[in-house]
Amino acid sequence: MAMTESIRRLMADFDARRPAALARAVSIVENHRRGFDELLAALHPRLGRARRVGLTGPPGAGKSTLSTGLVAAYRAANLTVGVVAVDPTSPFTGGALLGDRIRMESVALDPGVFIRSMATRGSLGGLAATTREVADVLDGFGFDRILIETVGVGQSELDIARMADTSVVALVPESGDSIQTLKAGLMEIADVFVINKADRPGADRLKHEVELMLGLRMGHTFRDIPAHHGVELRSANPARMARAAAASEGERWTPPVLPTVAVKGKGIDDLIGAIDRHFAYLERSGELRARRRQRLRERVVEVVEDRVRARLWRDDATNAWIDEKLAELESGTLTPFAAADALLERSGHLLTRGTT
Amino acid sequence: MAMTESIRRLMADFDARRPAALARAVSIVENHRRGFDELLAALHPRLGRARRVGLTGPPGAGKSTLSTGLVAAYRAANLTVGVVAVDPTSPFTGGALLGDRIRMESVALDPGVFIRSMATRGSLGGLAATTREVADVLDGFGFDRILIETVGVGQSELDIARMADTSVVALVPESGDSIQTLKAGLMEIADVFVINKADRPGADRLKHEVELMLGLRMGHTFRDIPAHHGVELRSANPARMARAAAASEGERWTPPVLPTVAVKGKGIDDLIGAIDRHFAYLERSGELRARRRQRLRERVVEVVEDRVRARLWRDDATNAWIDEKLAELESGTLTPFAAADALLERSGHLLTRGTT
Repeated sequence: MAMTESIRRLMADFDARRPAALARAVSIVENHRRGFDELLAALHPRLGRARRVGLTGPPGAGKSTLSTGLVAAYRAANLTVGVVAVDPTSPFTGGALLGDRIRMESVALDPGVFIRSMATRGSLGGLAATTREVADVLDGFGFDRILIETVGVGQSELDIARMADTSVVALVPESGDSIQTLKAGLMEIADVFVINKADRPGADRLKHEVELMLGLRMGHTFRDIPAHHGVELRSANPARMARAAAASEGERWTPPVLPTVAVKGKGIDDLIGAIDRHFAYLERSGELRARRRQRLRERVVEVVEDRVRARLWRDDATNAWIDEKLAELESGTLTPFAAADALLERSGHLLTRGTT
Repeated sequence: MAMTESIRRLMADFDARRPAALARAVSIVENHRRGFDELLAALHPRLGRARRVGLTGPPGAGKSTLSTGLVAAYRAANLTVGVVAVDPTSPFTGGALLGDRIRMESVALDPGVFIRSMATRGSLGGLAATTREVADVLDGFGFDRILIETVGVGQSELDIARMADTSVVALVPESGDSIQTLKAGLMEIADVFVINKADRPGADRLKHEVELMLGLRMGHTFRDIPAHHGVELRSANPARMARAAAASEGERWTPPVLPTVAVKGKGIDDLIGAIDRHFAYLERSGELRARRRQRLRERVVEVVEDRVRARLWRDDATNAWIDEKLAELESGTLTPFAAADALLERSGHLLTRGTT
C-alpha cells in the first residue's frame, strides 16, 4: 500500500517521538479517520515489543487507583507506560472519565506516560477493535508497558482483556460479588487475581474462595466458551488454547491471588512481580507466541469484517436498493433473509475490490 | 425458500399455539440452530401485530419489579405478554437471572405469559440481533405485548431499546446517577421516563431535573449520535429521524416523567396509560411506520453481516489460508490489512452464493 504524504509526515514525527504526533496518531486510529489503516499497516512490523497488561474488574474495585500505582511503579523502574482506559458502561455513569481526568493531571508533565480514555462509540465490537488498534499505536511508539483498563461488565471486556499478554482481575471484599457469580469466562482470562482494599473485612474469605475455585479450575479440563451463531473463530479462547498447549509441554500457570491496598500503595510491588513472573512463564512455555499468533488471527478477521461493512454500507447504490425494497419488506412479501441474499448477490462484487 | 420438513411441522404446532412449540422456536432462533432463518422468514409476514415496549435503566432501578407490574396489569386487561429479559452485564453479577427465575415461578402456569432471559453470548452485537429475533418469534406467536427488559449499561442496551415501539427508561432517586451523567443517547431513546421508588427522598428533585433536561432537549434540534467508523447506517437514530418527521407534521411527543413505587404496585396504571398514549401518538403521527421501516432496514443489514460472517468463517479453506499466513503476519512482512484484502479477493465468491 503506497503511503499518502500526510501519513508519511506523521510517521516521521512519530519516529522523532514527538508527543503531538502520538496524540494525532491515536486520534486518527481511534476515529478511523482517513489513513488510519495505512498508519496501522506502517506500524505493524514494529509491534510486539511492549508487554500488554489488562486490568479488569467490577465497578468500585479500585481499578484506577491500581493502575495509577502500576504506572508509578513502572516509572520508578524507568519503564514508559501507555494506558488505555475503556468504559463502555457510560450511558448511566460518567465516573471513569472523571477519574481519568484527575489522573491525567498528575502525570501530564511526564512524557513517559500517555493516557487515553475511550468511551462507548458505535458498537461494542467496534470498541474492542479500536482499543486493540490504539494499543498497537502505543506499542509502535515504543512504550515498554501498555495497560488496558476496563470496567468488567460485559462480553466486550472479556474481548478486550483477551488482547493482553497478562490479564489482571481485581476484586474487592465488599463488592458483593460472591465468587460463585464470577462467570467462567472471567475466571478463564485471569492470569493474576488482585483482592484490592484487602484491609477491609472479608478479604481473607474472598482470597480463600478464589483460590478454592482456582484449585477446582486447574484440576479440570477447560471447557470451551460456547460459540455464538456457530461462528467459532471469534469466540475461540486463545488463553485456554495456549494454556492447553503449555500444559502439554509440562508447565502450567496457577494464577496467584494477591492482596493489595492500592490507595496506600500496598501490594503494588508484589503485583508487578507477579506480572513479570507471568510474562517469563509466557515466554518460556511458548504461550506468548501462541497468544500473539491467535491475536493476529483475530485481527485479520476483525479487519475483514470492518472492510465488509465499510464497502457495503458506504455504497450509495446498495443503500438505495435497500430503500427500494422497504415496501416489499413492510408488506411481508420479501423477508429480510431473501433481501440479504439478493443484496449480497448484487453488491458482493464490492467486497472483493481493494478499495475501502 | 422451500421449508424443511421439521420447520414445517414446528410451524404447524406453532399455529396450533402449543406452548412447547413456542419454547422450541425460541430456542432454535436464540441459538441460531439449523432452520432458524427459515423459521424467521416464515414468521416475517405476521410481524407487527404486537406492541413492543422496551424497559431499560441502571442496575437497582427496579426493572424486574416494574416489568412484573406491567405484566400483571396487561394480564388483568386480558392481553398476552411475552418478556425478553437481557442481561449482558453478567461476568460479575448473576442477579437478573435469579430475579427472572423467581418471576418465572409466579407466572409459570399462565399460558398468556412467556418469559425468556438472555445473557451475554458471543458478541454484544449478536445479542442485540438475537433479542430482536426472539421478539419476532413472540410477535409471530401472537402475543399482544412484548416487553424487552435490559440492564442499561452500554451501547448494546441502546441498540436493544431502539427495537421497541415505546422505550421506557427507569431511574431511581438513590441510584447516584445525577441526571447530568445521562448520556444523550439514553435521553433520546426515552419515550417515557419512570422515577421508580418515588417514595424515597430525592424523587421530586430527580423528576424536576429530568423534566428540565427534557425541556432543554425539546427546544433544540436533535443532534446525530456520532457514527462509528463512518458506517452511519447502523448508527442512525430511527427515533430521532421519526421524531423529526412527526415534528414536521406538527405534532411532537414530550416524554412524561412518571413516579412509581413498583413494589407496591403504585403508578403502574399511569405507566400503562402513558405507553398507550405514546402508541396512539406513534400511529397518528406516522412515526410508528417510520420506526418500523427503519427497523426493517437495520434488520436487512444485520442479516447481511451475519451471513457474511457465517459464509467466511465457516469455510475451511479460508481458515486454512489465514493459518498459512500467520508466519508472515508474525514476521511483519504481511499486515492484517493486506491479509484482509487478499482474503476478500480469494474468498469473496463465497459471499455471493445463496447458501448459508
